[in-house]
Amino acid sequence: MNDFFARVKVASEINESCLCIGLDPDVKRIPGDIELSNEPFYDFLTPIIEATADLVCAYKPNIAFFEANGLKGLQELIKIMSFIRSLPTDIPIILDAKRGDIANTARAYAHSLFDEFGADAVTVNPYMGSDSLMPFFERVERGIFVLCLTSNKGYADFENQKNVKEPLFVSVAKKCANWNSYENIGLVVGATHPEEAAKVRKAAPELPFLMPGIGAQGGDPAKIMKIGVTKSGMPPIVNSSRSILYAGTGNKFAEASRDAALRVRDSLNEYLS
Amino acid sequence: MNDFFARVKVASEINESCLCIGLDPDVKRIPGDIELSNEPFYDFLTPIIEATADLVCAYKPNIAFFEANGLKGLQELIKIMSFIRSLPTDIPIILDAKRGDIANTARAYAHSLFDEFGADAVTVNPYMGSDSLMPFFERVERGIFVLCLTSNKGYADFENQKNVKEPLFVSVAKKCANWNSYENIGLVVGATHPEEAAKVRKAAPELPFLMPGIGAQGGDPAKIMKIGVTKSGMPPIVNSSRSILYAGTGNKFAEASRDAALRVRDSLNEYLS
Repeated sequence: MNDFFARVKVASEINESCLCIGLDPDVKRIPGDIELSNEPFYDFLTPIIEATADLVCAYKPNIAFFEANGLKGLQELIKIMSFIRSLPTDIPIILDAKRGDIANTARAYAHSLFDEFGADAVTVNPYMGSDSLMPFFERVERGIFVLCLTSNKGYADFENQKNVKEPLFVSVAKKCANWNSYENIGLVVGATHPEEAAKVRKAAPELPFLMPGIGAQGGDPAKIMKIGVTKSGMPPIVNSSRSILYAGTGNKFAEASRDAALRVRDSLNEYLS
Repeated sequence: MNDFFARVKVASEINESCLCIGLDPDVKRIPGDIELSNEPFYDFLTPIIEATADLVCAYKPNIAFFEANGLKGLQELIKIMSFIRSLPTDIPIILDAKRGDIANTARAYAHSLFDEFGADAVTVNPYMGSDSLMPFFERVERGIFVLCLTSNKGYADFENQKNVKEPLFVSVAKKCANWNSYENIGLVVGATHPEEAAKVRKAAPELPFLMPGIGAQGGDPAKIMKIGVTKSGMPPIVNSSRSILYAGTGNKFAEASRDAALRVRDSLNEYLS
Protein backbone atom coordinates (compact mmCIF):
# COMPACT_ATOMS: atom_id res chain seq x y z
CA MET A 1 0.00 0.00 0.00
CA ASN A 2 1.52 3.32 -1.04
CA ASP A 3 1.64 6.49 1.04
CA PHE A 4 -1.68 7.90 -0.19
CA PHE A 5 -3.71 4.75 0.41
CA ALA A 6 -2.03 4.28 3.79
CA ARG A 7 -3.17 7.79 4.77
CA VAL A 8 -6.72 7.04 3.63
CA LYS A 9 -6.64 3.88 5.73
CA VAL A 10 -5.56 5.78 8.84
CA ALA A 11 -8.21 8.49 8.36
CA SER A 12 -10.76 5.79 7.69
CA GLU A 13 -9.88 3.97 10.92
CA ILE A 14 -9.81 7.11 13.08
CA ASN A 15 -13.15 8.32 11.74
CA GLU A 16 -14.63 4.80 11.28
CA SER A 17 -15.68 5.89 7.84
CA CYS A 18 -15.34 5.11 4.15
CA LEU A 19 -17.27 8.23 3.21
CA CYS A 20 -15.65 10.83 1.00
CA ILE A 21 -17.45 14.15 0.65
CA GLY A 22 -17.34 15.64 -2.84
CA LEU A 23 -16.84 19.38 -2.81
CA ASP A 24 -18.84 20.56 -5.84
CA PRO A 25 -19.89 24.11 -5.00
CA ASP A 26 -22.59 25.63 -7.19
CA VAL A 27 -23.05 29.35 -6.61
CA LYS A 28 -26.77 29.08 -7.38
CA ARG A 29 -27.37 26.43 -4.72
CA ILE A 30 -25.40 27.92 -1.83
CA PRO A 31 -27.84 28.45 1.04
CA GLY A 32 -28.29 31.43 3.35
CA ASP A 33 -26.62 34.75 2.63
CA ILE A 34 -23.32 33.22 1.63
CA GLU A 35 -23.59 33.68 -2.06
CA LEU A 36 -23.30 37.42 -1.47
CA SER A 37 -19.88 37.15 0.20
CA ASN A 38 -16.59 37.80 -1.54
CA GLU A 39 -15.46 34.18 -1.15
CA PRO A 40 -18.69 32.21 -1.48
CA PHE A 41 -17.05 28.80 -2.00
CA TYR A 42 -14.75 29.21 0.99
CA ASP A 43 -17.52 30.54 3.21
CA PHE A 44 -19.84 27.71 2.19
CA LEU A 45 -17.43 24.78 2.21
CA THR A 46 -15.17 25.39 5.20
CA PRO A 47 -17.99 25.24 7.77
CA ILE A 48 -19.14 21.97 6.16
CA ILE A 49 -15.58 20.61 6.24
CA GLU A 50 -15.20 21.62 9.87
CA ALA A 51 -18.54 19.99 10.75
CA THR A 52 -17.71 16.71 8.97
CA ALA A 53 -13.94 16.29 9.50
CA ASP A 54 -14.51 13.48 12.01
CA LEU A 55 -16.84 11.60 9.66
CA VAL A 56 -14.86 11.12 6.45
CA CYS A 57 -11.81 9.34 5.04
CA ALA A 58 -11.20 11.89 2.27
CA TYR A 59 -12.50 15.04 0.61
CA LYS A 60 -12.89 15.26 -3.14
CA PRO A 61 -13.08 18.78 -4.59
CA ASN A 62 -14.11 18.72 -8.25
CA ILE A 63 -11.95 21.35 -9.94
CA ALA A 64 -14.61 22.02 -12.62
CA PHE A 65 -16.81 23.92 -10.19
CA PHE A 66 -13.92 26.14 -9.13
CA GLU A 67 -12.76 26.73 -12.72
CA ALA A 68 -16.32 27.81 -13.47
CA ASN A 69 -15.58 30.88 -11.35
CA GLY A 70 -12.31 31.52 -13.18
CA LEU A 71 -9.10 32.44 -11.39
CA LYS A 72 -11.08 33.61 -8.39
CA GLY A 73 -12.63 30.19 -8.04
CA LEU A 74 -9.26 28.47 -8.28
CA GLN A 75 -7.83 30.83 -5.68
CA GLU A 76 -10.63 29.75 -3.35
CA LEU A 77 -9.87 26.09 -4.10
CA ILE A 78 -6.25 26.57 -3.02
CA LYS A 79 -7.44 28.24 0.19
CA ILE A 80 -9.97 25.46 0.87
CA MET A 81 -7.35 22.75 0.31
CA SER A 82 -5.03 24.50 2.70
CA PHE A 83 -7.89 24.61 5.24
CA ILE A 84 -8.31 20.83 4.90
CA ARG A 85 -4.58 20.35 5.47
CA SER A 86 -4.82 22.37 8.69
CA LEU A 87 -7.43 20.05 10.23
CA PRO A 88 -6.30 18.18 13.39
CA THR A 89 -6.75 14.81 11.61
CA ASP A 90 -4.92 14.19 8.31
CA ILE A 91 -7.69 13.89 5.70
CA PRO A 92 -6.30 13.20 2.18
CA ILE A 93 -7.55 15.30 -0.72
CA ILE A 94 -8.60 13.68 -4.00
CA LEU A 95 -8.66 16.41 -6.64
CA ASP A 96 -11.24 15.34 -9.19
CA ALA A 97 -9.92 16.65 -12.51
CA LYS A 98 -10.26 13.74 -14.98
CA ARG A 99 -7.25 14.90 -17.01
CA GLY A 100 -5.65 13.00 -19.86
CA ASP A 101 -3.30 14.03 -22.69
CA ILE A 102 -0.14 12.90 -24.51
CA ALA A 103 2.88 12.30 -22.29
CA ASN A 104 4.59 15.68 -22.25
CA THR A 105 1.23 17.39 -21.64
CA ALA A 106 0.20 14.85 -19.01
CA ARG A 107 3.42 15.69 -17.18
CA ALA A 108 2.32 19.34 -17.13
CA TYR A 109 -1.07 18.33 -15.71
CA ALA A 110 0.52 16.09 -13.07
CA HIS A 111 2.80 18.92 -12.04
CA SER A 112 -0.14 21.32 -11.86
CA LEU A 113 -2.44 19.10 -9.81
CA PHE A 114 0.15 17.59 -7.46
CA ASP A 115 2.66 20.42 -7.06
CA GLU A 116 0.77 23.65 -7.76
CA PHE A 117 -2.54 22.65 -6.15
CA GLY A 118 -1.07 20.09 -3.76
CA ALA A 119 -3.49 17.22 -4.40
CA ASP A 120 -2.82 13.92 -2.62
CA ALA A 121 -4.65 12.02 -5.34
CA VAL A 122 -6.32 12.81 -8.66
CA THR A 123 -8.75 11.31 -11.12
CA VAL A 124 -7.54 10.71 -14.70
CA ASN A 125 -9.15 9.68 -17.98
CA PRO A 126 -7.77 6.53 -19.68
CA TYR A 127 -9.03 7.16 -23.25
CA MET A 128 -5.57 7.98 -24.67
CA GLY A 129 -3.85 4.96 -23.10
CA SER A 130 -0.74 4.14 -21.10
CA ASP A 131 1.64 6.95 -22.08
CA SER A 132 -1.01 9.51 -21.14
CA LEU A 133 -1.28 7.92 -17.67
CA MET A 134 2.36 7.12 -16.87
CA PRO A 135 3.34 10.67 -15.83
CA PHE A 136 0.68 10.32 -13.12
CA PHE A 137 1.53 6.73 -12.14
CA GLU A 138 5.19 7.77 -11.73
CA ARG A 139 4.18 9.90 -8.76
CA VAL A 140 4.61 6.94 -6.45
CA GLU A 141 3.47 8.55 -3.23
CA ARG A 142 0.21 9.91 -4.67
CA GLY A 143 -3.07 8.21 -5.57
CA ILE A 144 -4.29 7.93 -9.17
CA PHE A 145 -7.93 7.01 -9.73
CA VAL A 146 -8.53 6.00 -13.33
CA LEU A 147 -12.05 6.45 -14.76
CA CYS A 148 -13.36 2.96 -15.37
CA LEU A 149 -17.13 2.50 -14.96
CA THR A 150 -18.66 5.93 -14.47
CA SER A 151 -21.95 6.60 -12.70
CA ASN A 152 -23.72 8.49 -15.51
CA LYS A 153 -26.12 7.19 -18.17
CA GLY A 154 -23.68 7.97 -20.97
CA TYR A 155 -21.47 5.11 -19.71
CA ALA A 156 -23.44 2.94 -22.13
CA ASP A 157 -22.09 4.79 -25.18
CA PHE A 158 -18.46 3.69 -25.03
CA GLU A 159 -17.52 2.23 -21.61
CA ASN A 160 -20.19 -0.42 -21.87
CA GLN A 161 -20.98 -0.66 -25.58
CA LYS A 162 -23.04 -3.71 -26.44
CA ASN A 163 -21.94 -6.37 -28.95
CA VAL A 164 -18.28 -6.31 -27.99
CA LYS A 165 -16.19 -9.22 -26.78
CA GLU A 166 -15.07 -7.36 -23.70
CA PRO A 167 -16.57 -4.06 -22.57
CA LEU A 168 -14.16 -1.13 -22.51
CA PHE A 169 -14.52 -0.71 -18.73
CA VAL A 170 -13.31 -4.29 -18.21
CA SER A 171 -10.28 -3.68 -20.46
CA VAL A 172 -9.47 -0.54 -18.48
CA ALA A 173 -9.72 -2.43 -15.19
CA LYS A 174 -7.45 -5.25 -16.43
CA LYS A 175 -4.81 -2.93 -17.85
CA CYS A 176 -4.76 -0.81 -14.69
CA ALA A 177 -4.28 -3.93 -12.59
CA ASN A 178 -1.21 -4.68 -14.74
CA TRP A 179 0.15 -1.15 -14.58
CA ASN A 180 -0.03 -0.99 -10.79
CA SER A 181 3.67 -1.55 -9.99
CA TYR A 182 3.68 1.30 -7.47
CA GLU A 183 0.41 0.22 -5.84
CA ASN A 184 -0.89 3.74 -6.32
CA ILE A 185 -3.70 3.08 -8.80
CA GLY A 186 -7.38 3.02 -7.94
CA LEU A 187 -10.49 2.88 -10.15
CA VAL A 188 -13.52 5.14 -10.41
CA VAL A 189 -16.47 2.75 -10.28
CA GLY A 190 -19.97 4.23 -10.20
CA ALA A 191 -22.33 2.97 -7.51
CA THR A 192 -25.18 3.10 -10.01
CA HIS A 193 -24.21 -0.06 -11.93
CA PRO A 194 -23.75 -2.88 -9.37
CA GLU A 195 -23.69 -5.75 -11.88
CA GLU A 196 -20.96 -4.16 -13.94
CA ALA A 197 -19.08 -3.09 -10.78
CA ALA A 198 -18.84 -6.77 -9.87
CA LYS A 199 -17.10 -7.39 -13.21
CA VAL A 200 -14.60 -4.65 -12.44
CA ARG A 201 -13.87 -6.23 -9.07
CA LYS A 202 -13.25 -9.55 -10.79
CA ALA A 203 -10.90 -7.96 -13.35
CA ALA A 204 -8.96 -5.99 -10.74
CA PRO A 205 -9.24 -7.74 -7.36
CA GLU A 206 -6.69 -5.55 -5.61
CA LEU A 207 -7.44 -2.04 -6.95
CA PRO A 208 -9.17 0.28 -4.47
CA PHE A 209 -12.47 1.72 -5.72
CA LEU A 210 -13.55 5.35 -5.60
CA MET A 211 -17.32 5.04 -5.86
CA PRO A 212 -19.41 8.06 -6.79
CA GLY A 213 -23.11 7.89 -7.52
CA ILE A 214 -24.86 7.33 -4.20
CA GLY A 215 -27.13 10.17 -3.08
CA ALA A 216 -28.29 12.56 -5.82
CA GLN A 217 -27.38 10.06 -8.55
CA GLY A 218 -29.41 7.25 -6.99
CA GLY A 219 -26.85 4.49 -6.41
CA ASP A 220 -27.84 1.99 -3.71
CA PRO A 221 -25.08 1.45 -1.12
CA ALA A 222 -26.61 -1.88 -0.11
CA LYS A 223 -25.76 -3.26 -3.53
CA ILE A 224 -22.21 -2.03 -3.94
CA MET A 225 -20.42 -1.96 -0.57
CA LYS A 226 -19.20 -5.54 -0.54
CA ILE A 227 -18.24 -5.46 -4.23
CA GLY A 228 -16.18 -2.39 -3.43
CA VAL A 229 -13.88 -4.14 -0.95
CA THR A 230 -10.52 -5.30 -2.37
CA LYS A 231 -9.41 -8.90 -2.11
CA SER A 232 -7.09 -7.96 0.75
CA GLY A 233 -9.85 -6.08 2.56
CA MET A 234 -9.59 -2.39 1.72
CA PRO A 235 -13.10 -0.90 1.71
CA PRO A 236 -14.20 1.40 -1.12
CA ILE A 237 -13.97 5.17 -0.82
CA VAL A 238 -17.61 6.09 -1.30
CA ASN A 239 -18.27 9.59 -2.53
CA SER A 240 -21.33 11.71 -1.97
CA SER A 241 -21.46 15.35 -3.00
CA ARG A 242 -24.75 17.13 -3.56
CA SER A 243 -26.92 15.24 -1.09
CA ILE A 244 -24.55 16.22 1.72
CA LEU A 245 -23.53 19.74 0.63
CA TYR A 246 -27.07 20.87 -0.04
CA ALA A 247 -28.77 18.99 2.81
CA GLY A 248 -29.75 22.26 4.49
CA THR A 249 -31.30 25.41 3.13
CA GLY A 250 -30.91 28.05 5.85
CA ASN A 251 -27.96 29.42 7.77
CA LYS A 252 -27.62 26.16 9.74
CA PHE A 253 -26.52 24.40 6.54
CA ALA A 254 -23.32 23.00 8.07
CA GLU A 255 -25.27 21.20 10.79
CA ALA A 256 -27.61 19.77 8.17
CA SER A 257 -24.61 18.56 6.18
CA ARG A 258 -23.16 16.95 9.30
CA ASP A 259 -26.44 15.14 9.96
CA ALA A 260 -26.58 13.92 6.38
CA ALA A 261 -22.91 12.81 6.43
CA LEU A 262 -23.41 10.96 9.73
CA ARG A 263 -26.39 9.06 8.33
CA VAL A 264 -24.50 8.09 5.17
CA ARG A 265 -21.35 7.09 7.05
CA ASP A 266 -23.29 4.88 9.45
CA SER A 267 -25.31 3.22 6.73
CA LEU A 268 -22.15 2.50 4.70
CA ASN A 269 -20.59 0.88 7.77
CA GLU A 270 -23.69 -1.21 8.27
CA TYR A 271 -23.60 -2.57 4.71
CA LEU A 272 -19.88 -3.36 5.09
CA SER A 273 -20.25 -5.45 8.21
CA MET B 1 -21.46 25.29 -41.00
CA ASN B 2 -21.75 26.93 -37.60
CA ASP B 3 -20.23 30.24 -36.53
CA PHE B 4 -16.92 28.79 -35.31
CA PHE B 5 -16.19 26.74 -38.43
CA ALA B 6 -17.24 29.67 -40.64
CA ARG B 7 -14.69 31.84 -38.85
CA VAL B 8 -11.97 29.21 -39.34
CA LYS B 9 -12.89 29.09 -43.04
CA VAL B 10 -12.54 32.87 -43.40
CA ALA B 11 -9.18 32.95 -41.57
CA SER B 12 -8.07 29.99 -43.65
CA GLU B 13 -8.97 31.77 -46.90
CA ILE B 14 -7.41 35.10 -45.92
CA ASN B 15 -4.17 33.44 -44.80
CA GLU B 16 -4.28 30.64 -47.40
CA SER B 17 -3.58 28.25 -44.58
CA CYS B 18 -4.89 25.20 -42.77
CA LEU B 19 -2.11 25.43 -40.19
CA CYS B 20 -2.96 25.82 -36.51
CA ILE B 21 -0.12 26.64 -34.16
CA GLY B 22 -0.31 24.88 -30.81
CA LEU B 23 0.72 27.10 -27.93
CA ASP B 24 2.41 24.69 -25.49
CA PRO B 25 4.89 26.84 -23.57
CA ASP B 26 7.53 24.98 -21.58
CA VAL B 27 9.50 27.25 -19.25
CA LYS B 28 12.59 25.08 -19.66
CA ARG B 29 12.63 25.38 -23.45
CA ILE B 30 11.96 29.13 -23.80
CA PRO B 31 14.92 30.59 -25.71
CA GLY B 32 16.90 33.76 -25.05
CA ASP B 33 16.53 35.66 -21.78
CA ILE B 34 12.79 35.38 -21.66
CA GLU B 35 12.52 32.76 -19.00
CA LEU B 36 13.82 35.33 -16.55
CA SER B 37 10.95 37.76 -17.18
CA ASN B 38 7.94 38.08 -14.96
CA GLU B 39 5.58 36.88 -17.69
CA PRO B 40 7.65 34.28 -19.56
CA PHE B 41 4.73 32.71 -21.46
CA TYR B 42 3.38 36.06 -22.63
CA ASP B 43 6.83 37.36 -23.59
CA PHE B 44 7.61 34.17 -25.48
CA LEU B 45 4.30 33.53 -27.23
CA THR B 46 3.06 36.98 -28.24
CA PRO B 47 6.05 37.72 -30.55
CA ILE B 48 5.49 34.31 -32.16
CA ILE B 49 1.77 35.01 -32.54
CA GLU B 50 2.52 38.42 -34.05
CA ALA B 51 5.05 36.89 -36.45
CA THR B 52 2.68 34.12 -37.62
CA ALA B 53 -0.77 35.75 -37.54
CA ASP B 54 -0.89 35.91 -41.36
CA LEU B 55 0.03 32.23 -41.72
CA VAL B 56 -2.54 30.35 -39.65
CA CYS B 57 -6.25 29.54 -39.50
CA ALA B 58 -6.32 29.05 -35.70
CA TYR B 59 -4.24 29.01 -32.54
CA LYS B 60 -4.50 26.18 -30.04
CA PRO B 61 -3.23 26.92 -26.54
CA ASN B 62 -3.02 23.75 -24.44
CA ILE B 63 -4.26 24.74 -20.99
CA ALA B 64 -2.09 22.07 -19.28
CA PHE B 65 1.09 24.07 -19.83
CA PHE B 66 -0.47 27.17 -18.31
CA GLU B 67 -1.96 25.25 -15.37
CA ALA B 68 1.55 23.89 -14.76
CA ASN B 69 2.46 27.43 -13.68
CA GLY B 70 -0.57 27.67 -11.41
CA LEU B 71 -2.77 30.77 -11.25
CA LYS B 72 0.04 32.89 -12.67
CA GLY B 73 0.18 30.68 -15.75
CA LEU B 74 -3.59 30.89 -16.22
CA GLN B 75 -3.48 34.65 -15.84
CA GLU B 76 -0.93 34.71 -18.67
CA LEU B 77 -3.18 32.47 -20.78
CA ILE B 78 -6.05 34.96 -20.43
CA LYS B 79 -3.73 37.79 -21.48
CA ILE B 80 -2.40 35.81 -24.45
CA MET B 81 -5.94 34.95 -25.60
CA SER B 82 -6.87 38.59 -25.39
CA PHE B 83 -3.78 39.42 -27.47
CA ILE B 84 -4.96 36.97 -30.16
CA ARG B 85 -8.40 38.58 -30.17
CA SER B 86 -6.77 41.98 -30.76
CA LEU B 87 -5.05 40.86 -33.99
CA PRO B 88 -6.18 42.66 -37.17
CA THR B 89 -7.44 39.33 -38.65
CA ASP B 90 -9.95 37.25 -36.66
CA ILE B 91 -8.06 34.06 -35.73
CA PRO B 92 -10.23 31.62 -33.74
CA ILE B 93 -8.85 30.09 -30.55
CA ILE B 94 -9.16 26.35 -29.87
CA LEU B 95 -8.54 25.82 -26.16
CA ASP B 96 -7.10 22.33 -25.81
CA ALA B 97 -8.40 21.09 -22.47
CA LYS B 98 -9.70 17.56 -23.14
CA ARG B 99 -12.33 17.84 -20.41
CA GLY B 100 -15.06 15.30 -19.70
CA ASP B 101 -17.31 14.67 -16.68
CA ILE B 102 -20.95 13.93 -15.76
CA ALA B 103 -23.48 16.44 -17.06
CA ASN B 104 -23.70 18.98 -14.23
CA THR B 105 -19.90 19.03 -13.98
CA ALA B 106 -19.45 19.22 -17.76
CA ARG B 107 -21.68 22.30 -17.68
CA ALA B 108 -19.26 23.88 -15.21
CA TYR B 109 -16.31 23.06 -17.51
CA ALA B 110 -18.12 24.45 -20.57
CA HIS B 111 -18.88 27.65 -18.68
CA SER B 112 -15.27 27.91 -17.55
CA LEU B 113 -13.67 27.35 -20.97
CA PHE B 114 -16.15 29.30 -23.10
CA ASP B 115 -17.23 32.09 -20.76
CA GLU B 116 -14.42 32.59 -18.25
CA PHE B 117 -11.51 31.95 -20.65
CA GLY B 118 -13.39 32.93 -23.82
CA ALA B 119 -12.44 29.97 -26.02
CA ASP B 120 -14.00 29.78 -29.48
CA ALA B 121 -13.61 26.01 -29.50
CA VAL B 122 -12.43 23.30 -27.12
CA THR B 123 -11.28 19.70 -27.13
CA VAL B 124 -13.28 17.19 -25.06
CA ASN B 125 -12.84 13.55 -24.03
CA PRO B 126 -15.64 11.12 -25.04
CA TYR B 127 -14.94 8.31 -22.54
CA MET B 128 -17.99 9.04 -20.36
CA GLY B 129 -20.43 9.26 -23.29
CA SER B 130 -23.17 11.51 -24.58
CA ASP B 131 -24.42 13.22 -21.42
CA SER B 132 -20.85 14.28 -20.61
CA LEU B 133 -20.56 15.91 -24.06
CA MET B 134 -24.01 17.49 -24.49
CA PRO B 135 -23.31 20.56 -22.31
CA PHE B 136 -20.53 21.36 -24.81
CA PHE B 137 -22.52 20.50 -27.95
CA GLU B 138 -25.32 22.78 -26.76
CA ARG B 139 -23.04 25.76 -27.25
CA VAL B 140 -24.15 26.05 -30.85
CA GLU B 141 -21.88 28.89 -31.90
CA ARG B 142 -18.68 27.26 -30.60
CA GLY B 143 -16.56 24.40 -31.91
CA ILE B 144 -16.25 21.07 -30.05
CA PHE B 145 -13.44 18.73 -31.08
CA VAL B 146 -13.96 15.27 -29.62
CA LEU B 147 -10.89 13.08 -29.05
CA CYS B 148 -11.19 10.23 -31.51
CA LEU B 149 -7.90 8.82 -32.82
CA THR B 150 -5.08 10.44 -30.88
CA SER B 151 -1.52 10.85 -32.13
CA ASN B 152 0.28 9.06 -29.27
CA LYS B 153 1.44 5.46 -29.00
CA GLY B 154 -0.97 4.73 -26.16
CA TYR B 155 -3.86 4.99 -28.68
CA ALA B 156 -3.38 1.25 -29.12
CA ASP B 157 -4.46 0.50 -25.54
CA PHE B 158 -8.13 1.44 -25.77
CA GLU B 159 -8.90 3.56 -28.86
CA ASN B 160 -7.58 0.90 -31.19
CA GLN B 161 -7.67 -2.31 -29.15
CA LYS B 162 -7.17 -5.39 -31.27
CA ASN B 163 -9.64 -8.27 -31.46
CA VAL B 164 -12.74 -6.11 -31.32
CA LYS B 165 -15.55 -5.96 -33.85
CA GLU B 166 -15.24 -2.22 -34.23
CA PRO B 167 -12.38 -0.18 -32.77
CA LEU B 168 -13.40 2.40 -30.17
CA PHE B 169 -12.21 5.30 -32.33
CA VAL B 170 -14.59 4.24 -35.10
CA SER B 171 -17.51 4.04 -32.64
CA VAL B 172 -16.64 7.54 -31.40
CA ALA B 173 -16.54 8.88 -34.97
CA LYS B 174 -19.91 7.34 -35.86
CA LYS B 175 -21.65 8.55 -32.71
CA CYS B 176 -20.26 12.06 -33.13
CA ALA B 177 -21.52 12.15 -36.71
CA ASN B 178 -24.98 11.32 -35.33
CA TRP B 179 -24.80 13.87 -32.52
CA ASN B 180 -23.87 16.72 -34.86
CA SER B 181 -27.27 18.46 -35.11
CA TYR B 182 -25.71 21.88 -34.58
CA GLU B 183 -22.86 21.25 -37.05
CA ASN B 184 -20.40 22.28 -34.36
CA ILE B 185 -18.60 18.96 -33.79
CA GLY B 186 -15.13 18.14 -35.09
CA LEU B 187 -12.82 15.21 -34.36
CA VAL B 188 -9.25 15.07 -33.09
CA VAL B 189 -7.50 12.71 -35.50
CA GLY B 190 -3.76 12.20 -35.13
CA ALA B 191 -1.62 12.61 -38.23
CA THR B 192 0.53 9.70 -37.08
CA HIS B 193 -1.95 6.94 -38.02
CA PRO B 194 -2.98 7.51 -41.68
CA GLU B 195 -4.64 4.11 -42.20
CA GLU B 196 -6.84 4.51 -39.18
CA ALA B 197 -7.53 8.16 -40.05
CA ALA B 198 -9.01 6.95 -43.33
CA LYS B 199 -11.45 4.79 -41.33
CA VAL B 200 -12.48 7.83 -39.30
CA ARG B 201 -13.12 9.79 -42.49
CA LYS B 202 -15.31 6.96 -43.76
CA ALA B 203 -17.27 6.81 -40.49
CA ALA B 204 -17.76 10.58 -40.31
CA PRO B 205 -17.56 12.06 -43.83
CA GLU B 206 -18.68 15.54 -42.82
CA LEU B 207 -16.88 16.13 -39.51
CA PRO B 208 -13.95 18.57 -39.68
CA PHE B 209 -10.66 17.12 -38.45
CA LEU B 210 -8.25 18.75 -36.02
CA MET B 211 -5.01 16.93 -36.79
CA PRO B 212 -2.12 17.04 -34.33
CA GLY B 213 1.01 14.96 -34.72
CA ILE B 214 2.97 16.46 -37.59
CA GLY B 215 6.36 17.93 -36.64
CA ALA B 216 7.83 16.73 -33.33
CA GLN B 217 5.50 13.70 -33.27
CA GLY B 218 6.56 12.55 -36.74
CA GLY B 219 3.25 12.47 -38.68
CA ASP B 220 3.69 12.77 -42.46
CA PRO B 221 1.46 15.49 -43.98
CA ALA B 222 1.76 13.85 -47.40
CA LYS B 223 -0.21 10.87 -46.09
CA ILE B 224 -3.00 12.64 -44.22
CA MET B 225 -3.97 15.87 -45.95
CA LYS B 226 -6.46 14.44 -48.43
CA ILE B 227 -7.98 12.11 -45.84
CA GLY B 228 -8.48 15.18 -43.66
CA VAL B 229 -10.77 16.98 -46.12
CA THR B 230 -14.51 16.60 -45.42
CA LYS B 231 -16.89 15.28 -48.07
CA SER B 232 -18.05 18.82 -48.77
CA GLY B 233 -14.51 20.13 -49.06
CA MET B 234 -13.47 21.58 -45.70
CA PRO B 235 -9.72 21.00 -45.25
CA PRO B 236 -8.37 19.71 -41.92
CA ILE B 237 -7.04 22.06 -39.27
CA VAL B 238 -3.48 20.79 -38.97
CA ASN B 239 -1.75 21.49 -35.70
CA SER B 240 1.95 21.86 -35.05
CA SER B 241 3.28 23.00 -31.70
CA ARG B 242 6.85 22.26 -30.65
CA SER B 243 8.54 22.26 -34.08
CA ILE B 244 7.30 25.80 -34.66
CA LEU B 245 7.54 27.26 -31.14
CA TYR B 246 11.06 26.01 -30.55
CA ALA B 247 12.40 26.46 -34.11
CA GLY B 248 14.88 29.09 -32.92
CA THR B 249 17.22 29.18 -29.98
CA GLY B 250 18.44 32.79 -29.69
CA ASN B 251 16.65 36.09 -29.33
CA LYS B 252 15.43 35.95 -32.94
CA PHE B 253 13.18 33.03 -32.01
CA ALA B 254 10.03 34.66 -33.41
CA GLU B 255 11.59 34.96 -36.86
CA ALA B 256 12.66 31.33 -36.71
CA SER B 257 9.10 30.36 -35.77
CA ARG B 258 7.75 32.39 -38.68
CA ASP B 259 10.12 30.63 -41.09
CA ALA B 260 9.10 27.24 -39.74
CA ALA B 261 5.37 28.11 -39.89
CA LEU B 262 5.73 29.38 -43.46
CA ARG B 263 7.39 26.16 -44.56
CA VAL B 264 4.73 24.00 -42.91
CA ARG B 265 1.84 26.09 -44.26
CA ASP B 266 3.18 25.94 -47.81
CA SER B 267 3.85 22.23 -47.71
CA LEU B 268 0.35 21.55 -46.35
CA ASN B 269 -1.12 23.57 -49.22
CA GLU B 270 0.94 21.61 -51.69
CA TYR B 271 -0.33 18.27 -50.42
CA LEU B 272 -3.91 19.56 -50.52
CA SER B 273 -3.82 20.61 -54.17
